[in-house]
Amino acid sequence: MFDLKRYLLERASWINERLADFVPSIYAKPFLLSEAIHYSLFAGGKRLRPILCVASAEAAGGDGEAALPVACALEMIHTYSLVHDDLPCMDDDDYRRGKLTSHKVYGENMAILVGDALLTHAFTVLSSYGAEDPAARLQIIREISRAAGPSGMVAGQTQDVLSEGRAVDPETLEYIHVHKTGDMFAAAIRSGAMTAGAPDRMLDALTEYAEAFGMAFQITDDILDMAGDSGKMGKTAGGDNKLGKGTYPSLFGLERSREMARDFIRKGLRALEALPEERTEPLRAIIEYLAGRET
Amino acid sequence: MFDLKRYLLERASWINERLADFVPSIYAKPFLLSEAIHYSLFAGGKRLRPILCVASAEAAGGDGEAALPVACALEMIHTYSLVHDDLPCMDDDDYRRGKLTSHKVYGENMAILVGDALLTHAFTVLSSYGAEDPAARLQIIREISRAAGPSGMVAGQTQDVLSEGRAVDPETLEYIHVHKTGDMFAAAIRSGAMTAGAPDRMLDALTEYAEAFGMAFQITDDILDMAGDSGKMGKTAGGDNKLGKGTYPSLFGLERSREMARDFIRKGLRALEALPEERTEPLRAIIEYLAGRET
Repeated sequence: MFDLKRYLLERASWINERLADFVPSIYAKPFLLSEAIHYSLFAGGKRLRPILCVASAEAAGGDGEAALPVACALEMIHTYSLVHDDLPCMDDDDYRRGKLTSHKVYGENMAILVGDALLTHAFTVLSSYGAEDPAARLQIIREISRAAGPSGMVAGQTQDVLSEGRAVDPETLEYIHVHKTGDMFAAAIRSGAMTAGAPDRMLDALTEYAEAFGMAFQITDDILDMAGDSGKMGKTAGGDNKLGKGTYPSLFGLERSREMARDFIRKGLRALEALPEERTEPLRAIIEYLAGRET
Repeated sequence: MFDLKRYLLERASWINERLADFVPSIYAKPFLLSEAIHYSLFAGGKRLRPILCVASAEAAGGDGEAALPVACALEMIHTYSLVHDDLPCMDDDDYRRGKLTSHKVYGENMAILVGDALLTHAFTVLSSYGAEDPAARLQIIREISRAAGPSGMVAGQTQDVLSEGRAVDPETLEYIHVHKTGDMFAAAIRSGAMTAGAPDRMLDALTEYAEAFGMAFQITDDILDMAGDSGKMGKTAGGDNKLGKGTYPSLFGLERSREMARDFIRKGLRALEALPEERTEPLRAIIEYLAGRET
């Protein structure tokens, strides 16, 4: 029987250890920048994106540890996006993962610089470490920068900001989620497989898994935001609703949303059937876990 | 007789043409993001960093046009840094190059997203285009991301923000300038040479030139800010002083500052003597131009 909890803890500890190596030391000048980078990067994130990257490398027959530079770069980009999204002129969040957000502790200017630093440093890590051949590393940089950039995550966040306080149609809601969240999940899973030199057929199957994962994640996120327990989540439940944001439960109702999430989970599991079963246990367990997630 | 004005105009038009190709179309969704990216990227910048990149590739015996993807990525990163530095919580500037700054036109949230988009997209360009072999392209990405990141430009900007309204000593002033401005000049000149496959000896000479260039540029910038003509500069003269920022003229006086700038220009010219004279005309003319710059 596959022990998901143990797998997640072990992979998260690999990632935390390497993240601490890759990021500028807390004693690097300017001290306040280093301290603020560490504050957000080690604020208790679940490390879901880097774990998916490592699990995908393993599913593709590669060595999970060899994917760690890519995995850590993904977490830096994810953290930058949270720090900037939390700013007063964006989502204006005071808490994240149960702790004060960067700008509440260090000020808005430092929070912007922390995000800029983490985003840029991710590309130093991607270009400096990793055992893949140079052409594969370039392909990974292209994959990740596209997913994070103006036709990926930034496009999703822009549409999200522009939609605030307006009624969004299902098409716009999907656009926001696909780009704001889905593109980076896809990049995490695809780039992990690329570190293992996965052939196209395998990459296609993992891409299908990734797209289903992203949708299931986002729908369960919306459900949690509406129905969840603020204490467990470390942020205020109902936050999206407060900003007048469209969500799956607000458009389709809770019951139909839960059904949609289950459909995407089944779709993701089906996609994995193209890979050797014994290597896909972690990816299967992680997507199944979404159905019951509480945080 | 070398015609610097013509050289600068021609290279700037190469760069503007390729920039328009590389950046998301103005018709790309979300429209407001694309429009805001174009607004800042085509706001009349001098294209100094990309021109130096191209000129350095030529000085190293390479093809200037082959350096254009790298040159354009450098301009995207430079533009992102201006857009974020102009924000109310940073330098709070309403005008840049004679036009309203991004956040004044599109709002703070859009200005942050424009910067994030340009920074990320620069790495898509660097990883997607260019004739250099993959190992050289990785080296260029490493060079540029380090110069822009938490031990480069972001460190300089952080120290600048932290020093506002305080008396800075000459050491701190140099730290700010070396990292905020110098590191990206060095990356522009070094990465240009890398596109041409420059040998180490040549790269060392160009690095020396670049460091001297960065200092001369910054000192003349400070002098202009104190003594310049607001109309010609398109921003308010005395702006640094208003924020209580340390500058070379405020620490050393105008006359001594002009002398220091001339010393760095001489140093830069000397460094170029290690390269074939007929190929360094543009780099020589550009650094000499700093002595008389008015904008």
